[in-house]
This record gives sequence, C-alpha cells and structure tokens, in this order.
Amino acid sequence: MTSDLPRVLVRVLNLVLERNGGQVSEWSERELGRAAVLRAVAVDGPVSRSVLAGRLGVSPATVTAITRDLLDDGLLEPAGKEPGGSRGRPAELLRVVPGAAVALGVKVAATRVTGVLVDLLGHTLSGFEYPFAAHEHDPVATLAAILHPHVEAAGQHLIGLGLGVPGVVDTSSGHVTAPTLQWTDVPVGPGLAELLHVPVVVDNDVNTLAIAEHLYGRAKGVDDALTVTIGRGIGLAITVGGRLHRGAQGGAGELGHTRAVVDGPLCGCGRSGCLEAIASETGMVQRAVSEGLLPAEGTPAALRDLARQDARAAAIFAAAGAALGRSVGDLVNLLAPTLILIAGEGTAAWTLLEAAFHAAFDEQVLDTHRAVEIAVDPWDDRAWAQGASSLLLGSVYAPEHVTRLGQGAEIRDRLQAVNGGVGDGR
Amino acid sequence: MTSDLPRVLVRVLNLVLERNGGQVSEWSERELGRAAVLRAVAVDGPVSRSVLAGRLGVSPATVTAITRDLLDDGLLEPAGKEPGGSRGRPAELLRVVPGAAVALGVKVAATRVTGVLVDLLGHTLSGFEYPFAAHEHDPVATLAAILHPHVEAAGQHLIGLGLGVPGVVDTSSGHVTAPTLQWTDVPVGPGLAELLHVPVVVDNDVNTLAIAEHLYGRAKGVDDALTVTIGRGIGLAITVGGRLHRGAQGGAGELGHTRAVVDGPLCGCGRSGCLEAIASETGMVQRAVSEGLLPAEGTPAALRDLARQDARAAAIFAAAGAALGRSVGDLVNLLAPTLILIAGEGTAAWTLLEAAFHAAFDEQVLDTHRAVEIAVDPWDDRAWAQGASSLLLGSVYAPEHVTRLGQGAEIRDRLQAVNGGVGDGR
Repeated sequence: MTSDLPRVLVRVLNLVLERNGGQVSEWSERELGRAAVLRAVAVDGPVSRSVLAGRLGVSPATVTAITRDLLDDGLLEPAGKEPGGSRGRPAELLRVVPGAAVALGVKVAATRVTGVLVDLLGHTLSGFEYPFAAHEHDPVATLAAILHPHVEAAGQHLIGLGLGVPGVVDTSSGHVTAPTLQWTDVPVGPGLAELLHVPVVVDNDVNTLAIAEHLYGRAKGVDDALTVTIGRGIGLAITVGGRLHRGAQGGAGELGHTRAVVDGPLCGCGRSGCLEAIASETGMVQRAVSEGLLPAEGTPAALRDLARQDARAAAIFAAAGAALGRSVGDLVNLLAPTLILIAGEGTAAWTLLEAAFHAAFDEQVLDTHRAVEIAVDPWDDRAWAQGASSLLLGSVYAPEHVTRLGQGAEIRDRLQAVNGGVGDGR
Repeated sequence: MTSDLPRVLVRVLNLVLERNGGQVSEWSERELGRAAVLRAVAVDGPVSRSVLAGRLGVSPATVTAITRDLLDDGLLEPAGKEPGGSRGRPAELLRVVPGAAVALGVKVAATRVTGVLVDLLGHTLSGFEYPFAAHEHDPVATLAAILHPHVEAAGQHLIGLGLGVPGVVDTSSGHVTAPTLQWTDVPVGPGLAELLHVPVVVDNDVNTLAIAEHLYGRAKGVDDALTVTIGRGIGLAITVGGRLHRGAQGGAGELGHTRAVVDGPLCGCGRSGCLEAIASETGMVQRAVSEGLLPAEGTPAALRDLARQDARAAAIFAAAGAALGRSVGDLVNLLAPTLILIAGEGTAAWTLLEAAFHAAFDEQVLDTHRAVEIAVDPWDDRAWAQGASSLLLGSVYAPEHVTRLGQGAEIRDRLQAVNGGVGDGR
C-alpha cells in the first residue's frame, strides 16, 4: 500500500473512540476488515460477495481477498448459488460456519451456576445448571471444578468463557466484589483463566443480560435503553448510544441503593430507605416477616401466594411497585431512554406489582418523556448466561463491548488458532 | 490512491459511531485529515510537521500535503523556526491563525441575553449583555434584533451562532420548549438562521456549560462527568465517555423534576416533592415567602442576607443542601462519574448549602463510589455563552459534539469559504 491514509483515519477515529472508551488501536486494519466482513455475513448471510461489497462500500476485489482469508480459516463456507437472475453466472453465496467457534457463557448466583454453550452466531447449543454455594471456602476453585468438564467437552473450538456475576466487577482486573455472594475483591477472572486455561471475561450479570437483550432480545437496534432487574437486589444496566455505560471502575447502575424514601426501612447495606429494601424480593420478604405475615424462613414464592388472599401481603407488593415506578420514572427523566426492560426472577410477581408501578411511573415521568416504551421480560437465567457468552462473541465481531475488558486480541488470536490456520491468510 | 481500505475503515467505524450517534460519513477523508491536523496544531502548537507526523502516526509527506492545504486556506501560519538542535536545518513551526474564524456564543435567560465572540482557539474576543424579556411577543425577532449588530460586526469570518437556552431543545430541528422562558416549541434555530443569515446551532444551556467545562474548564480530559447547576431551576448535563448524553429527543438531564421527597412541596411543574421545589433559588424563595420570612417580591440575594442572621432562613438552605446532596449521591451511585461540577448563579449561596450537602452526600454515596471529585465552579453567564460558541468550534475540529445537531458540513464549508479558498486545496 502506498498511502498511509488508513493510519490517519485510525488515528483520527481513535481520538473519537478514546473518549468513548473504545480502542481502535488494538485492531489492525486486517482485523477490522475481517471483523466487518464476518459481521456482515453473520447479519445478512447467506450473501454474495458483490452484495457484501456494496453493503460495506468497498471494491469486490477487497471483499474477495478478505473472504478468501475467512474461508481458509474455516470461519466462512460456500452456501450455494444465488437464486438465478436472467443474466450471467449466478453468484456464489457465503455464510458463517456456526460451529467454527463456540463460547461458554455462565451466570453465577448465590446458590446456583447456570451456563450455556453458544456457537459463533450466538445460538445456544446446550445448557447446564448446578447448585453452587458462592459464600463457601474457595469459590473460584469450586467454579473451576464445575466448569472444567464443560470446557473439556467444548474442545478446541472454544474461544473462551464469559462470566456474569451479581456484583461490582473491576473489568480491567476481573476481580469481583459482590455482597450477595459474600465476595470481596475475589480474583475470579484471573483465577478461572489459570485453572481452566482459556480466556475469561467477567462482567456484572445485569450488564450481560443487557448485552443479550441488545444482541438478541427486545433492545435490538435500540441505542438508549435501561434494563432494570428485580430479584435478591434491584439491578440496572444503562445503555447509552448503543454502548453499556460502566462508569468509573465499572460500578455504574447501583439503582438498588438509591434513596426511595427518606427514613425508610433498613437496607442490607446498612442505610435506610434504599429502593432495594422496599422493592427487592429480599426486602419484601423481610417486611412480611417483620409484620408476622410469613415465618422467618419465608420465600418470595410464599409471599406471592399469600398476596392473592391477604390484603397486607398485597400492600407490600403495591408499595414495592410504587417505589419502583417512581424510581424508574426518575431514571427516564434523567436519561431519556427509548426503552425500559424489566427482568429478573422478581417479575414472577409482576401482576402484583404492575398497577402500582404504572400509577407511580405515570405520575413521576415528565410529559416530554412519556414516549418511552416499557417491556417486562420473563427471560430466565439462561438469557443472562447467553449475555455472558456474548462478551466473547463481541470481540470477534466488533470492538464495542469487549475492548475495555481487555483480552480482545487474545480471543481473536485463539479464534484463528482453533480454526487451524490452514493458509497464512494471504 | 490504489487501495480502498480507507473506505473499509470509515464504514467499519461508522458501524461503531452510528451507535454512538456520531457520523463519520458526513466527513470526507480529506475533512478528517484536515480536522485532525488542525486540532493537533491547536492543541500542541506551535509545532513542526515532523512532530505532527509522529503524533498523528502518519508520514511526513501526508502532513506536508494537509498543512499546505490549511496554509493556503489561511487557517494555519508559519510560527518561526524550532529552537536549534545541533544537527541539520531547524524545522519550521506552524500555528493556528486564531482570527481565521470567529463564532458567536449566546446564553439566553428569562431576563437577559449574554454573548461572547470567540476565535478559532476559543479565546474570548469580546462580550455583551442585554436585558431581554423572553416571554414577550415574538422573542425570536427580538433576539435577532439584539444579535444583528454583533453578527454584522463579526464580519465575513463568522462561522455561525451557538445558542444555549434553559429548556428542552430538539437538536435536530432547533425548536425549543422552555417553561422558565414561557416558550413552547419555539423555532429559535431556524428563525434566527433565516433572520441573521448564518448557521445557528441550539442546545440546552446546561449542555453548553458542560461543553465549555469539557473543552476549557475543570472537566478537561475527564470522560465521565456530571454538571449540576443551581439557579431558577436545577440543571444537569451528563457526560458519558467524553460525550454529552442527550437521550431521546435531547431531553436527558431532568434532575430538577426527580422526586426528592415523597409528598414534598408543590413544584412549578404541578407535581410535588421535586428537587427543584426544594433546592432551586425559586423553590427556596417560595418557601421563605410562604413562611413569612420574605415579602412576595423577595429575591435569592435577600434570602441569602437573611440566612446569616435568621435560623429559619438558614434552615431553608440546609434543607436544600441536604436534598441536593442526596440526589447527587444517588446520581453517583447510578452513573459512577469521576467528577461532579456544581455551577450556576445559586452557587453564590454555596457556603449556606455546603455543610448539609456534604453530610447528605456522604451518607448517600456507596463506599465503592467515594473516589468521585466534587468541584464548585463560580463561572458566570459568559462561560455558558462560551460553551454555546463551542458548539460551532466543535464542528471545525471534531465530529463529536455537533454532528447530531446537523449543520456540521455547512459550518465547515463556511469556514473554508470565509478564508478565501486561495488554492483549490491540492
């Protein structure tokens, strides 16, 4: 190449992306071209080279060179001929080889581990669930023991392991602090990588759910969305301009410990009036126990059953719904998203929360912000795990999600290595 | 050029930027190169071509071509020779010609208009302030009459007018809805552009202040910052990853109408317990009037004076400071910024708000988020106006701030046109 304009562009766009937390510099031009073509085929395939060239705005010769590279590596394969037009030879179609790479996605909860194996297109190939005592001695070794057979079974095409955990994740080090798991600065990322010999990417579990919603779910194509989860705690993932907002040290989204009521009930965090103390499953059960409605070992399911016949139990759900509606209304006033997704195990009680939620939300949200859509999503733990696997697929297709988590280059190297590297790519 | 790789890159990066609301596509390669060099010289100048080449990662030949172009257009000028090293000819230094372009920045308030004329480096050349009755008949014509002499005086080097207004701005149309100005869907942007024959970019005034802080102030180099303003209302600008977060239809940042207290005092918006009803100058004066501490025509300054001798007046500031501290603490829990800037005319009473603010903030913010820095900034209306002028300078140097506001290409065309276009740029 005689011109160094590509480097100018990369530098200029780095200036832009740096400020967005992205890093083009980690990507060589070749990687960018490969990722763009791979993504276009994944999204639109089966597709011909000439359609790809048009869609990407590059010459057919460039597409031919890049696709030859991807065919050699076993990442693309021929997919028959284009349905015949009247003129000339029908063009050959290309598609992604779904099994060319697989990733493991795992959601860690206080009492269980849920995992999925996905292919290069994000399709779930298999799933598993095990009991897991997160608070016991050496949880990293226990997790590694649980996951080891699945890493082995995934074989040489495994590009890595994505982990979603309910806590604050230092995305640069992979260390996790999670009160509900009784973890303080636990080196889950480096620990698992060492024990399992695969790249490991760790993120907050609500973030992984938001990524899954963004890639496969209701938030597909939505730039500004909020994912609110109800469970043991209250979680929030903020998507701004199509990107997860992690904030300084990855701790953004602590909706559960914002103040819902001045001088409200005591929260697990030691303060009072937190949204979590009122609207989480834990908070609702605690109130029911303190009011003598449930025994000390009462569960969210028991409280739901009771609420169908007991007005005081129903009032606990109504208070939770109202607090949540007010908080979500204020979030809309602050961040003006186009979509709110409500998810998590606590949505099992949505019919009990719903009326109070909407009344409070409607009262709280400003007229200028009413166009926001609210969707309640009954997805299960597998969706969260699928999101965790997307942490890895993201580094194959696009720099957006993963570069700040590091290891993007390592994962892409592995992708090339596990696919034999038949040619040298030229 | 034989390779079309630059186009691949632009396309790939468009995929990234599209999701961030940016648009590389509006920028030709030539514009990107020119903007990168112009920005590098503006930031680091006077600087030699070889240093520029190193900094931008391009060949000296590329820099020479682009700088020749910018010298021809009168945007750059020679700035003497490099202080002598021991070997070879000392290199020629280049600097930006500050007066090659000027921009007008204007802050519109309910009772006054404040403006500044800035040069290409953002330095203030002159300023003005006029009384202005925003709620009277035909405010756009009145504004145009006020600004016309300044547009005339700025002459042919004026690239346009940036306007900061206290309201919700539809950044695509330039229409403004602002309760404090009694404006509903007023076409300020297109109206002024038609009457003054210059490009006009309109944004929320707190956003323009945040841009000024980001370019020239304390938020320089900070990716995740919040700018909270105290005045007639309570304002918020959210900077995420170095970009202003505007949200759907530009309405993000409505901190003033989030709920500070359930069943609190009535707010101007018709609801109760809004932060603005408790912590804005208007809210505090209203409470003082209702408690018989001030006459009906009482002012924020009168309340400040009274608070130095009257415990009940002091309690109003303490309640405001506490509500603000709690709200800002929750914002930090939600968004995990690295910096909070507190600004606006209401900071004149900061000594009265301060203790209660910090006590409530410290109680509210989570341990994991305590590293955030809080700075109180006594900047005046000129800073807000300077921020408004940056809306225009932004489109000269970088696609970040302005492309969503449109007109970037028009402003850059004008920049080239007003500078004579001596050569054809080759």
